[in-house]
Amino acid sequence: MSLLAHWVDGVQGAPLAVDDRGAAYGDGLFESILWSRGRAVWWAHHIRRLSRDATRLGIAPPKPWFWQEDLDFANAWLRAEGCERAVIRLTLTRGRGGRGYAPPVPAEPMRMLQIHDAPGIDAALQPISTMRCRIQLATQPALAGMKHLNRLEQVIARRECAVAHVDEGVMFDTEGALVCSTMGNLLLRLDGRWLTPPIERAGVAGIARDHLIRHGLAVEQPLHEPELARAEAIAVCNSVRGILPVGSLDGQPYEDQKETHALQQALHDIEPSFLAMVG
Amino acid sequence: MSLLAHWVDGVQGAPLAVDDRGAAYGDGLFESILWSRGRAVWWAHHIRRLSRDATRLGIAPPKPWFWQEDLDFANAWLRAEGCERAVIRLTLTRGRGGRGYAPPVPAEPMRMLQIHDAPGIDAALQPISTMRCRIQLATQPALAGMKHLNRLEQVIARRECAVAHVDEGVMFDTEGALVCSTMGNLLLRLDGRWLTPPIERAGVAGIARDHLIRHGLAVEQPLHEPELARAEAIAVCNSVRGILPVGSLDGQPYEDQKETHALQQALHDIEPSFLAMVG
Repeated sequence: MSLLAHWVDGVQGAPLAVDDRGAAYGDGLFESILWSRGRAVWWAHHIRRLSRDATRLGIAPPKPWFWQEDLDFANAWLRAEGCERAVIRLTLTRGRGGRGYAPPVPAEPMRMLQIHDAPGIDAALQPISTMRCRIQLATQPALAGMKHLNRLEQVIARRECAVAHVDEGVMFDTEGALVCSTMGNLLLRLDGRWLTPPIERAGVAGIARDHLIRHGLAVEQPLHEPELARAEAIAVCNSVRGILPVGSLDGQPYEDQKETHALQQALHDIEPSFLAMVG
Repeated sequence: MSLLAHWVDGVQGAPLAVDDRGAAYGDGLFESILWSRGRAVWWAHHIRRLSRDATRLGIAPPKPWFWQEDLDFANAWLRAEGCERAVIRLTLTRGRGGRGYAPPVPAEPMRMLQIHDAPGIDAALQPISTMRCRIQLATQPALAGMKHLNRLEQVIARRECAVAHVDEGVMFDTEGALVCSTMGNLLLRLDGRWLTPPIERAGVAGIARDHLIRHGLAVEQPLHEPELARAEAIAVCNSVRGILPVGSLDGQPYEDQKETHALQQALHDIEPSFLAMVG
């Protein structure tokens, strides 16, 4: 998934400042957005989350029309290139600053839009292999829920998966609670419902997760190893791939994907850019 | 403390790649080094820590002679400018990568040297005001000890200090153990000794702290609120400023700075670039 084009503060191809606090301290946020059928899927939700989390960090969020202008550039670029699907990454940092953790006053936030190529169109239809990660997520309520730039735990988890030749990792927090997978939120099928763990102490408040909950397709509930062990099916969701069916966990297969396919279909009905298995 | 000059992979003034994983995920490390009397203080120790922590993260550390070449450039620049003191920041990231947390294979790490102006020469001699930070450090043994680029907790802590008009913050972890201050390691004077908390679950294995311990000037010991409350004196140490005397904690003054001045003198005897009160 390589970088195709980018805009920094509205300027195509502009470089990052070497003293940007995003690069120096991870002092910022990002969004990964599916671009499909000529538009950015769930755009308003992503901008709303980004603005909300910026406010939590004390970063003044750009007015939405700045992002809209960036998106207009991206739309024009993608249409001119004849792209059908892509991933748009938005990054917002506190901007440039000197040495030291104290945020500069005043700060001028930096915004960037990047266009990446998209995962294969049928990627979401193939069941993925998963494993329980050894690294546990630290619990930090001050950062939980945000899609911030401090992602070393996820990087370490992905390295574990790569070593094990497994597609994706299931992550617990240091207190033994299930939180998420490395690249999305987690869904367990239990007793006729899809359950997803809370994200108040660790994890990201995913946009796809939000949609599933608001449409009554999933319910938030604290989950631990016993629930994981007896889940009838598992899925991962994120706003780029939609619902990813889990084919196995630490080698144990999930044969019955019926409920997962039904969930894919339900998400497809909400947002047709997310694919579903055909009958 | 503004940026004066920089080198990216040995090239002066070169930009950061917009798809660098340091900027994308905080996937990297840094060092802050005092430059004084024509040389980088404790250079070998900083390079050793950076290399050790890179290995922990699975980032191939550059051979030391690459860093040495960067330092040669910096030395020449600083001497030509007639600088007496400066701060050198080294940054090492996993390098460029596409979207997604999985480290690229192979990865080409990015190294950067930045020259910043130094804090005032007598900064270390003035007692600083401190407060207990509300934000607690998450415990994450997989990252503890490293000076990595995931620094949002410190940024949030510094914002608390700024709001309170206090110089520096004392930080506990989520389990109630004392860990550090926002910009250095912590030293408590108790029962005739300088004590410093362990950094196995959170915090940074500071180079100044290491020197103090190895020279028998401080002892590592688990510390909590009761020890903080009854400390006769408090100091902060880091490898840019040396020993910073704490003048107050949440408004409670520490009148007697005798032991802190003795510690400054002891560090000055080890490394004369760190100042001590005269007589």
